Amino acid sequence: MHFMQSLQHAWQRNHSLVCVGLDPDPAKFPVHLAGKPEAVFDFCAAIVDATADLVCAFKPQIAHFAALRAEGVLERLIAHIHEKHPGVPVILDAKRGDIGSTAQRYAIEAFERYGADAVTANPYLGYDSIAPFLEHADKGVVLLCRTSNPGGADFQALDCGGAPLYLRVAETIAAKWDAHGNCLLVTGATWPEELGKVRAVAGDMPLLVPGIGAQGGDVAAVLHHGLTTNGTGLVISSSRAILYAGHGEDFAQAARTATTQLRDAINAHR
Amino acid sequence: MHFMQSLQHAWQRNHSLVCVGLDPDPAKFPVHLAGKPEAVFDFCAAIVDATADLVCAFKPQIAHFAALRAEGVLERLIAHIHEKHPGVPVILDAKRGDIGSTAQRYAIEAFERYGADAVTANPYLGYDSIAPFLEHADKGVVLLCRTSNPGGADFQALDCGGAPLYLRVAETIAAKWDAHGNCLLVTGATWPEELGKVRAVAGDMPLLVPGIGAQGGDVAAVLHHGLTTNGTGLVISSSRAILYAGHGEDFAQAARTATTQLRDAINAHR
Repeated sequence: MHFMQSLQHAWQRNHSLVCVGLDPDPAKFPVHLAGKPEAVFDFCAAIVDATADLVCAFKPQIAHFAALRAEGVLERLIAHIHEKHPGVPVILDAKRGDIGSTAQRYAIEAFERYGADAVTANPYLGYDSIAPFLEHADKGVVLLCRTSNPGGADFQALDCGGAPLYLRVAETIAAKWDAHGNCLLVTGATWPEELGKVRAVAGDMPLLVPGIGAQGGDVAAVLHHGLTTNGTGLVISSSRAILYAGHGEDFAQAARTATTQLRDAINAHR
Repeated sequence: MHFMQSLQHAWQRNHSLVCVGLDPDPAKFPVHLAGKPEAVFDFCAAIVDATADLVCAFKPQIAHFAALRAEGVLERLIAHIHEKHPGVPVILDAKRGDIGSTAQRYAIEAFERYGADAVTANPYLGYDSIAPFLEHADKGVVLLCRTSNPGGADFQALDCGGAPLYLRVAETIAAKWDAHGNCLLVTGATWPEELGKVRAVAGDMPLLVPGIGAQGGDVAAVLHHGLTTNGTGLVISSSRAILYAGHGEDFAQAARTATTQLRDAINAHR
């Protein structure tokens, strides 16, 4: 199924705009998992199984696996999601970006090797660096636009002839890159008014919104500025606040509770 | 040793500004390596061993390993370079970029797991996304500035208050990010005049220059616009034109010949 269809179905089926980010950090795992060879897989799979009916997507962050030499775990985790929770799309958070011939390799990595339904990418190198992802018309391509971190303004907010760079990026992607209707934009929850400006130029393009939870974004403001007319259009990602909500053997139940609370807090504003 | 020292020593010792990019593509390997389980390692190690006295750096491109599920090969290849050719620095071409807590994981991936001496990174997310790399003061951080691909102009050339974005990036890095003296900038050989503008604002900061060879960059123009006053300051990267110079059992010798020719063509303009 096309990523966008999967996402729309999951929005409806689970009545949820929440995306759980899978950023495993063994130093934060519950004690009973410490040192076990399968700890990373077991931790992430338990989170997935406890939250799959509450989310619109999962978003594993590849650096957290690569730093652990755990690419094989990431492969198995995504296969686990597809097998146990079909219909919940997987966004591989890799923020890739390179010249065309290398971007083709990154597209193979994301879509063939890992079987991701969508991948995050960095637009700084321009169209031909993203085209090899876009050509997978059934896959989502989630492009950085206005990021949630403090340094996001360093370049993204520079004035480019009357509009900040991040809006030029959004305009260009909406007008020129989205021919297959498979683009999304990353717009941080920490800048809700700027998120609204992106929404104004991006039409109904889905926005991936990190920065809720640990980074302090405001749910009400994000919904106010970001919802589409049908009450969707947002993939609101939370990682640490869900993954590490509990520290004991009931960590997965704690994650479920935190996910439910976030889903409901979001839905209260829809 | 500090990456910058290694680079300066290699520039002098090998009288070379050439960096060989290691982008293994099994479809282009010589027939006698086809299908062998160690083909990727054997191919890359043969290229390395045949050219190590002719280069100032090696630059493995991680997508070409990741698409093959060959992270283990990349680890062994970098270890091989350090063991057999100490003093030739390794630049891991990964173009990473993410928020600070994730960037820390990417820094672990590049410097601890792979043992790279430098890593390429994307500046779009701003200072805090790069700081975890910069804090490794003995490592090089090679930041995208003006890239060699056709789409490089899409955003990099946008006018930001009287100067293009890529120059704002260069200025910011030179003025604010380079406190440890461990930054480099990527400036494509395909835009030599723009490379000269970067040189004008970046002082003696080394420039990594892809786009010579397969992408058609002009050696004379690059040297004219990019050399520092001591006749160095450039890391001129060539991948396909060297790796696939030969197609038979003598591929490594052919790569050596191509590397020698490029080194000499460059040195003729120094």
